[in-house]
Amino acid sequence: MYGLIGKITAHAGKRDELVEVLLAGAKDMPGCSSYVVAQDNSDADAIWVTEVWVNQASHQASLKLPAVENAIAKGRPLIAGFGDRVMTTPIGGIGLALVR
Amino acid sequence: MYGLIGKITAHAGKRDELVEVLLAGAKDMPGCSSYVVAQDNSDADAIWVTEVWVNQASHQASLKLPAVENAIAKGRPLIAGFGDRVMTTPIGGIGLALVR
Repeated sequence: MYGLIGKITAHAGKRDELVEVLLAGAKDMPGCSSYVVAQDNSDADAIWVTEVWVNQASHQASLKLPAVENAIAKGRPLIAGFGDRVMTTPIGGIGLALVR
Repeated sequence: MYGLIGKITAHAGKRDELVEVLLAGAKDMPGCSSYVVAQDNSDADAIWVTEVWVNQASHQASLKLPAVENAIAKGRPLIAGFGDRVMTTPIGGIGLALVR
């Protein structure tokens, strides 16, 4: 498995909109077993996106999906910057969706 | 929802064992919709645990479950230290298990 944990900082007041854009783009992604968008409780402009994919190739392929390309285009002007970004190898747990 | 993203550093050579202990303890936790244990790809001793709970109370309650208490007891001597720890409010996404 391949995992990503990333922090994104929205422009002031744009966090909710950015969350909605990301969630709208992440509905039907082959090879994705987890994709969670969360607000940072101690930073009013920050969100965290945590992802689990079957492998790195399926994550790469997702970036070419029309819905994801659309989300990236809509999201980019809402983003002030990217923070921590960690690549991981998930081993297991709860809430890993069956992957098509 | 209530989320946690945390980095844990194992003692050298103990990461795999710590991952297994955490996963063994996290099998049946009411209110947990996601709990993923992952290796850090760029730090051979580090793991990341990402969690989504129905609310903060269910996370607190989980710490009193016998299986979780057992995992904490077994895991503690394997842990060298705790790193980043972020509290979040997950909004949605893929791979959030139905919660009992």
